[in-house]
Amino acid sequence: MVKRYLTVTSLSETLSLLTTVFTCTPAREIVPLLKSVGRVTAEPIFARYSVPEVHLAAMDGIAVDSKETRGASEQHPVRLVQAVRVNTGNVVPPRFDAVIMIEDVHIENEHFTIRKAAPPWQHVRPAGEDIGESEMALPSRHLIRPPDLGALAAYGIMEVPVLTVRIGLIPTGSELVSHGNIPAPGQVVESNTVMAEALLAALGARCTRYPMVNDDPEQIRKALQRAVRENDLVIISAGSSAGTKDFTADVIADLGEVLVHGVAIKPGKPAIIGRIDKKPIIGMPGYPLSALTVLREIVTPLVHRFGLPVPAFGTVDARFIVSVSKDIGSDEFVLCTLGHVGDRWVLSPLSRGAGVQMSAVRSNAFLKIPAGVEGCEEGTLVTANLTVSQEEAERALLVTGSHDPLLDYLADLLSQKDVELHSTHVGSMGGILALKKNECHAAPMHLLADDGDFNIPYLKKYLPGEEVVLICVTERQQGIVSKDGIGFDALPGHTFVNRQRGSGTRMLLDHLLTKNGIDPSTISGYEREVTTHLAVALAVKSGEADAGMCVYSAARALGLRFVPVASERYEIGIRHEHLEDRRVSELCNTLVSPGFKEILGRLGGYDTRKTGVRRELP
Amino acid sequence: MVKRYLTVTSLSETLSLLTTVFTCTPAREIVPLLKSVGRVTAEPIFARYSVPEVHLAAMDGIAVDSKETRGASEQHPVRLVQAVRVNTGNVVPPRFDAVIMIEDVHIENEHFTIRKAAPPWQHVRPAGEDIGESEMALPSRHLIRPPDLGALAAYGIMEVPVLTVRIGLIPTGSELVSHGNIPAPGQVVESNTVMAEALLAALGARCTRYPMVNDDPEQIRKALQRAVRENDLVIISAGSSAGTKDFTADVIADLGEVLVHGVAIKPGKPAIIGRIDKKPIIGMPGYPLSALTVLREIVTPLVHRFGLPVPAFGTVDARFIVSVSKDIGSDEFVLCTLGHVGDRWVLSPLSRGAGVQMSAVRSNAFLKIPAGVEGCEEGTLVTANLTVSQEEAERALLVTGSHDPLLDYLADLLSQKDVELHSTHVGSMGGILALKKNECHAAPMHLLADDGDFNIPYLKKYLPGEEVVLICVTERQQGIVSKDGIGFDALPGHTFVNRQRGSGTRMLLDHLLTKNGIDPSTISGYEREVTTHLAVALAVKSGEADAGMCVYSAARALGLRFVPVASERYEIGIRHEHLEDRRVSELCNTLVSPGFKEILGRLGGYDTRKTGVRRELP
Repeated sequence: MVKRYLTVTSLSETLSLLTTVFTCTPAREIVPLLKSVGRVTAEPIFARYSVPEVHLAAMDGIAVDSKETRGASEQHPVRLVQAVRVNTGNVVPPRFDAVIMIEDVHIENEHFTIRKAAPPWQHVRPAGEDIGESEMALPSRHLIRPPDLGALAAYGIMEVPVLTVRIGLIPTGSELVSHGNIPAPGQVVESNTVMAEALLAALGARCTRYPMVNDDPEQIRKALQRAVRENDLVIISAGSSAGTKDFTADVIADLGEVLVHGVAIKPGKPAIIGRIDKKPIIGMPGYPLSALTVLREIVTPLVHRFGLPVPAFGTVDARFIVSVSKDIGSDEFVLCTLGHVGDRWVLSPLSRGAGVQMSAVRSNAFLKIPAGVEGCEEGTLVTANLTVSQEEAERALLVTGSHDPLLDYLADLLSQKDVELHSTHVGSMGGILALKKNECHAAPMHLLADDGDFNIPYLKKYLPGEEVVLICVTERQQGIVSKDGIGFDALPGHTFVNRQRGSGTRMLLDHLLTKNGIDPSTISGYEREVTTHLAVALAVKSGEADAGMCVYSAARALGLRFVPVASERYEIGIRHEHLEDRRVSELCNTLVSPGFKEILGRLGGYDTRKTGVRRELP
Repeated sequence: MVKRYLTVTSLSETLSLLTTVFTCTPAREIVPLLKSVGRVTAEPIFARYSVPEVHLAAMDGIAVDSKETRGASEQHPVRLVQAVRVNTGNVVPPRFDAVIMIEDVHIENEHFTIRKAAPPWQHVRPAGEDIGESEMALPSRHLIRPPDLGALAAYGIMEVPVLTVRIGLIPTGSELVSHGNIPAPGQVVESNTVMAEALLAALGARCTRYPMVNDDPEQIRKALQRAVRENDLVIISAGSSAGTKDFTADVIADLGEVLVHGVAIKPGKPAIIGRIDKKPIIGMPGYPLSALTVLREIVTPLVHRFGLPVPAFGTVDARFIVSVSKDIGSDEFVLCTLGHVGDRWVLSPLSRGAGVQMSAVRSNAFLKIPAGVEGCEEGTLVTANLTVSQEEAERALLVTGSHDPLLDYLADLLSQKDVELHSTHVGSMGGILALKKNECHAAPMHLLADDGDFNIPYLKKYLPGEEVVLICVTERQQGIVSKDGIGFDALPGHTFVNRQRGSGTRMLLDHLLTKNGIDPSTISGYEREVTTHLAVALAVKSGEADAGMCVYSAARALGLRFVPVASERYEIGIRHEHLEDRRVSELCNTLVSPGFKEILGRLGGYDTRKTGVRRELP
């Protein structure tokens, strides 16, 4: 039997259902003060005593009775009968009500003479200046920050009652292996409950990850019963395998009830909301990005109803730079790269595959495209939801165009300069278009023109008259990657894996095929496209193809053989107007740094003699 | 001998000195993956294998060889010779290159018939779709977030090298007692290193708090030598007492060198920058808010140079609503309350006393007033630096005007509705002015007019024709607080503590004094002003004054006697335009809630029969 979702519930309905169905009584726990940062108070906290408890000197000087100082002046110095030396922080003895700074006191034989009257309470920190005995220092539901913690320490507080939610996490799926094991082919490391615990524990939840459970109704049932007993909220995480083995909903229905099976969100549609013993049970889908979406959009608001804080980084208005289409009827959450180019934010979608965790790693924002629309057009002004602080997003350097493995190493070097290189692999032609539309900071490219030069003829054609600088990253070798040392001429008769149209590598291949009179249709797999050099090498290594074309470093990284076919100039194009931008100038500096050259030497296949050479257009 | 700072260094000079003088080589430590959230990678992290490692089915269905499906159509169904049933996530066996969804397959006796050709790689998640073997998952200096952690778990990473800085914290000061002890009068709980550890550990520093050291050069010397040996950075925290006992700089000079003694910031001027064995030594001043400023403005940037992240909440443009003046020559950092009223942010300074930790607790933003200017005028548009997320700042409900202890309890109730009540005690008249200038959401007041009515005559006078609603919070008793049961008539002849001009209590007192023919000059202490009811009661309890005037709840909280003199109507004024604001409507709901009435009953002295009664103007 193949099961399908009978009804899918909208996200907003799901969220209001959560509000009406569950009471969400917060749990509390007592933590030592020093462990309370980032937690939320469960009740108001009162000062145990006044701070300061008595009047203190706010200056170094002498404590005086202000009445005794009356009438003192330059002409009529007053020698004080009673006064004592005090330092800042010392107790002002009860018979005194003011402090005179030591600079204004003439001291002779332990007698004090002054030339200016002191008004009452001058330079005195009165008792209770900071807080009064019994006064409320923090209300309940206050998120404790380091200065709050310092204050509570000063007010005599040693333990703090804070809110928590006990959350049970049950991983299910026979194909899973637990974190720390090397998965066999077809096995997957169980990482979703690891991510969930990291996310929820940071909000103050007390998470218990239960042992993994196979796709077996009886095992799931037992695990669920125990988790419900021991927690306020249970998240049951499916394996990424669903199909005939999706028993979770049945078991929930059997122990309690299924309120929602299928939420109209993408990724995350297979989510389940259930109730057992009045407690919420969340069925979290197995694809990592589906799990992430359910955690962010459903679990976090629910946990907030238990009193825990919700992390929020705010939003910015941004220009969406690629058209995406989607099915109507679901809210789609698209992970994106956000960067500030010139005077505007630009937002670019990352791979939307629910299994591509690197999209989450690479993203610093996401876009919500509502259920009612069919997609988002290129150029639309949208609201980007940050997933990092705005300061961090402002460090993003957008590099859009041709891919080379060296970009990762460039990113690594730049991160030490507080610059985050975000590279989008759209091929050299894609980079030229991004440059034309001013939607990136730098565009790497390697486009061979008919005249034998690289890149400049294309820039002249697509950005005529525009002020652009080309900086040579490296000259590099492209070649045929294979297990057996296949050469270019031997491509017909072998299965091939190709790069996408618009990529410089694809254009180079097509150029060479034409030049050598080879018909692409004689190459099996010519239509199979991937978007990076490493993906080509991987396809060869995995046996999916016998050969492909890529740079030497990718072949070498996977221990494959490489037959060179061409040398080419890999340059980055930068609009003149961005050269002064800190992120761009750090990029330019890093390109010519010894550290970068050293890395290129190590990766292999790069010739750095022209690295850093600038060519200006027009 | 009295020591003074010979030269004071500007903040910007201090910061560039830190950059030029110290190398700041980051330390690293290996942490288990599950402990790595919020930490920063010390080196790039590479995937240990491809994910997925082999081609996987992306749908439930059958794995097929796409070549075998060619030509299939409604008219020409194809019965497949080789195909196997697969579920989502299953391995696609090597001889197959596509998956057909189960809905599109006719199954009979384990034979599969299809009516549509499958293009190669349809519904297949290719090996390496997420990440390729040897590919860089994270660059160095990447702040690890929960989804990163999930990805690393999936990529076979069990331990992560992260950056850290070993920071030694040495508390000094003979007047200090350690956290957990009740201070005797004149003693202070050592809370600054507690705050520093909370702040720095959250960034990934490994902090060691050393035992407290008395004001003794030899003890300080020994502690410093040990801390320098064991750490990359040492913070030596002074007691709040300075004066004749400030030995820190001498000891640093003796063991190494003092680079800066005195930074032109307020609070925080006594800061010291020293160097011993090439390591930075920071002398942190003893006043808590001085310490906080030095931590934020000097230590955090230094720690960032070691590679740790800097927390940042961004800025907003805000209208500064009170004039403050300052000395020229120092950057002053003023802790503030920030709130969004109508369509603009308003920023209001909190107490600037360096010992008032509650200012840090109450603040959600700060203003930097640069060295070159003499202050900030009321009404200036300034840049407010947030110390909470903007979302949290948007929850601020600004209540400005007359103080009553019940406001803390109202804040506590509202925090459960995601509303943060920030009350500013400027007295009833101050509240009316804030209401007039539309710089608060609600203004509490209790102003007795000549006609015996409260508040309305004043609103008519100061906000003529404006649409304002008055909501009665409570009727309450004002009276004389004392240890001995002093009555109003007995005030002459006793020392008194007064409320500030413009407060309703002061106006009531003056009204009663006039009515009873008592000359204020016969009351000793009449000129001594404090700003809250509790501060009045505290002054009486501490013996600073024999009597004062306040509400019953404040007298009761401190166990003092109370002789009633008048009953009055304590109302909040709200501009009509803000009634629909969520924060304001939650305030109105809470005022009439049973929970609030119950609290007033418990505090005592409040008559809730009119609570919630609305009076509209004009």
